[in-house]
Amino acid sequence: MTDARTDARTDAASAPSAARARSWWGWGWADAQLDDAGCAALGALLPGTLAKPLPVPQVRDLPVAAPAVTVPGSLAHLVTDDPHQRAAHAMGKAYRDVMRALRGRTARLPDLVAHPAGDQDVADLLDWAGRHGVAVVPYGGGSSVTGGVEYRGDAHRGVLSLDLGRLDRVLEIDRESRAARIQAGVLGPALEDQLRPSGLTLRHFPQSFEFSTLGGWLATRAGGHYATGRTHIDDFTQSLRVVTPAGAGESWRLPGSGAGPSPDRLFLGSEGILGVITEAWLRLQERPRHRASAALSFADLGAALRAVRAVAQSDLTPANCRLLDAGEAAMSGASQDGSAVLVLGFESAWGPVEDRLAQAVALAREHGGRGGEPAAGRGAPAGAAVDAWRSAFLRMPYQRDALARMGAVVETFETAATWDRLPALIEAVRTELGAAAQRITGHPAFVNCRLTHVYPDGAAPYFTVLAAGRPGSEVEVWDDLKAVAGEVLHRHRGTITHHHAVGRDHRPGYDRQRPEPFALALRAAKRALDPHGVLNPGVLID
Amino acid sequence: MTDARTDARTDAASAPSAARARSWWGWGWADAQLDDAGCAALGALLPGTLAKPLPVPQVRDLPVAAPAVTVPGSLAHLVTDDPHQRAAHAMGKAYRDVMRALRGRTARLPDLVAHPAGDQDVADLLDWAGRHGVAVVPYGGGSSVTGGVEYRGDAHRGVLSLDLGRLDRVLEIDRESRAARIQAGVLGPALEDQLRPSGLTLRHFPQSFEFSTLGGWLATRAGGHYATGRTHIDDFTQSLRVVTPAGAGESWRLPGSGAGPSPDRLFLGSEGILGVITEAWLRLQERPRHRASAALSFADLGAALRAVRAVAQSDLTPANCRLLDAGEAAMSGASQDGSAVLVLGFESAWGPVEDRLAQAVALAREHGGRGGEPAAGRGAPAGAAVDAWRSAFLRMPYQRDALARMGAVVETFETAATWDRLPALIEAVRTELGAAAQRITGHPAFVNCRLTHVYPDGAAPYFTVLAAGRPGSEVEVWDDLKAVAGEVLHRHRGTITHHHAVGRDHRPGYDRQRPEPFALALRAAKRALDPHGVLNPGVLID
Repeated sequence: MTDARTDARTDAASAPSAARARSWWGWGWADAQLDDAGCAALGALLPGTLAKPLPVPQVRDLPVAAPAVTVPGSLAHLVTDDPHQRAAHAMGKAYRDVMRALRGRTARLPDLVAHPAGDQDVADLLDWAGRHGVAVVPYGGGSSVTGGVEYRGDAHRGVLSLDLGRLDRVLEIDRESRAARIQAGVLGPALEDQLRPSGLTLRHFPQSFEFSTLGGWLATRAGGHYATGRTHIDDFTQSLRVVTPAGAGESWRLPGSGAGPSPDRLFLGSEGILGVITEAWLRLQERPRHRASAALSFADLGAALRAVRAVAQSDLTPANCRLLDAGEAAMSGASQDGSAVLVLGFESAWGPVEDRLAQAVALAREHGGRGGEPAAGRGAPAGAAVDAWRSAFLRMPYQRDALARMGAVVETFETAATWDRLPALIEAVRTELGAAAQRITGHPAFVNCRLTHVYPDGAAPYFTVLAAGRPGSEVEVWDDLKAVAGEVLHRHRGTITHHHAVGRDHRPGYDRQRPEPFALALRAAKRALDPHGVLNPGVLID
Repeated sequence: MTDARTDARTDAASAPSAARARSWWGWGWADAQLDDAGCAALGALLPGTLAKPLPVPQVRDLPVAAPAVTVPGSLAHLVTDDPHQRAAHAMGKAYRDVMRALRGRTARLPDLVAHPAGDQDVADLLDWAGRHGVAVVPYGGGSSVTGGVEYRGDAHRGVLSLDLGRLDRVLEIDRESRAARIQAGVLGPALEDQLRPSGLTLRHFPQSFEFSTLGGWLATRAGGHYATGRTHIDDFTQSLRVVTPAGAGESWRLPGSGAGPSPDRLFLGSEGILGVITEAWLRLQERPRHRASAALSFADLGAALRAVRAVAQSDLTPANCRLLDAGEAAMSGASQDGSAVLVLGFESAWGPVEDRLAQAVALAREHGGRGGEPAAGRGAPAGAAVDAWRSAFLRMPYQRDALARMGAVVETFETAATWDRLPALIEAVRTELGAAAQRITGHPAFVNCRLTHVYPDGAAPYFTVLAAGRPGSEVEVWDDLKAVAGEVLHRHRGTITHHHAVGRDHRPGYDRQRPEPFALALRAAKRALDPHGVLNPGVLID
């Protein structure tokens, strides 16, 4: 039995993506969105939602202003002012973005969308933008859930969305060192398709895998497939090539180095404010051939957290170690009896993993876990809980959009904290967000939690808040809930984001979290690399 | 059988260090240095060395100028102008430093040595230095082998060595998250002594362990105990506290975060040019209870490299995976028959490791390794090769100083490169350094290589060059050999340093390796945090 993400991504990678249309306003494929009846059925599960779904928004109904800027003839072949393209590049895919589209409150459209074919195109476009005071918003798959690809403000003469989608190739594979040089604009499935003949894999599967790009993962320090051990894209980065307004450059391909501060680590997570990552060498792995997984249930979340900590502090390093609280387990169908569920999965390209699974299950049972019978081997009959979770994981973003059409408010956010702070943080989020949602909306809310990544020194909880909206004010309800969430995380010293990025929506939390000496350094670096201040204004720093 | 470094450090940690005197000019303990007879015996192994050892240098023979600057009364209790202290803080412990002391060419002494007791003292000293144009050279254990603690030039009114040795305490231990808040000036053994009652360990054992500090490890991105997996101090850093001339700040303790570029990674490896790291939260581990190791020999270095690559690309992650080429094996006594020797060691706090050792040995044998019988368990009879290596590892720096007294030139340098480039790089270093040494000195030289750290995508070779010097011009010979080494590494795209840092000696290589956009950012960060340019001038950037 593979873990949830493995199968999900294998399936996704072989889908005929070229022929399918992406939704301009909602998550993913247009044809995978729930229909009106599906929306209504989902909405009925939540008190206080609308009687019928909001209509699917249409680009033709948007107010589309003429572009405020035009490029010179030498760049004309790289840009378009097509309204559908401009609309599709105006926002990311946060609930806030989807709901604004549904309510006819779409953000300011970029004036132009550019599709550079290489580094020189990127440099030329940055040069033009700098000379004319045009904001440049780098755009990968557009899956940002933090306002990362949306221009806000009016300090620039115009806005250019810089879509890297044409930079979509694996350029070189070094089989011996197990690494590949890959262009930044490639989407997850196309990346894995091109690696497949080599027998190697990047094995980086964020939930957005189908609709996000390598460059986006790098620029936002995406969290990946593995629940334990090295999982952030940072650790798989061997070198980066970056084009900035002040010039381009690339780091050497090195397995390790102590020569000064890591140059790559300054650009990893820089969210497009310092330069545009155009390609990178990434560390690859053999494809796993051995897998085993199991699920355990816990009557008590505290006991489950202690079990997860014991596994994380062992040297077993499961590939999957996902803890669902009772609400999350019920929502995904993994358990209906009020238990928390722990899904454990192991994989290896080298040898059987049943033994490690058995050790992890034994550890979890010491802390009160029940069940845990292994469901080993690809294609073997799967445990019902594991299966249910996998299926739910793929449906979630589409269900969120369906709930949005029913006027519900769906807020998902994630954080990370050390073990000593984690139980109190989770309890505070559940209590305070639940109370805030009730106060703001007048209806009870669901606040669920799962752990997505675990470390020896802490873990990353992911929260889902489901509540009725106030009809017409769903965005404001979301903003209020977001502010409450930010306050709770700050008070409990949980990071404002573990893998969703800062963007524009997390700025208040990030501004308080970022150490002042680093803020001074980052602002100085920004001034040096982007002297005209055109790169993704408003993200990370002002 | 523990691996070399484990035992070495356990022994070191329990040595009665407080009662012993450090050498002001050479490595380590004064009473551990070889006597004249020992020097002569070692020198006799190398053609062209002196007939008798150079005398041990004495501080009383140095020209000690009166301090060029004085501090105000409010800071007087923090500083000293004692000549022995000034001499001991004038240089690091590179061969170049030792030989200059032996030849009476000691670098300019700092005018004052400060011993701050806390952050406010550091801030006050930085403030005074900035206002008066006094260079500040942060000083931990003084074990730099790259000119990292030595002021060069004359652009400042004076030089203050900022010795953090009084910041030597473990302040707090979080048993649940397995982490500790530790002051930056603590030496390795004192750090482990303070952790021991908790049952936890940082398990970071660079060769300099006894004579280097946590702050030094952080500021230079030190490479640690483990041959594979997470080993650089970077990965064990949970948060940093930094005092800069522009203000102090600390990052949050987090197990993982995607909130902007990692603030800690800008200061890790910054070698004291951006600020002074005064304390940090470090991730700890359980002490290992299970160990097993074995040694294999290879007739051919190429085959041995393939064996090491196979082990590094498996998921076995040995704690020790050290490959000695034939010369290195002979020099350490691990083998005398012209074989390369691979030492493999496993350890775990959790369970037996014999099985993983057996798998690694089997992999190595597939690539032509001979031997590999396990010598398992602490206190069990050790394999002779493993034993010999361990003992040699501890003696090496003292032997280097003994050879220096015999007028030999000893250059050790390390790098890292991807597997596709590694065999050619090693061959080029051996051939070209050997030829250069012969050309420059007129005598044949030994050029040996070992791999200290291995990664799935490459490895870190460590080279030792032993040659006769030209009497009186040993430093110039070293400089010439260093320049040749830098050229070879640059041509083969090996990093100028994997864990020794850049300091001042590696600047030419680093200047060529550092990507230009990062250079712009680093210079800008430096101007923002150190506006008067007083922090460790000449290191990393100008």
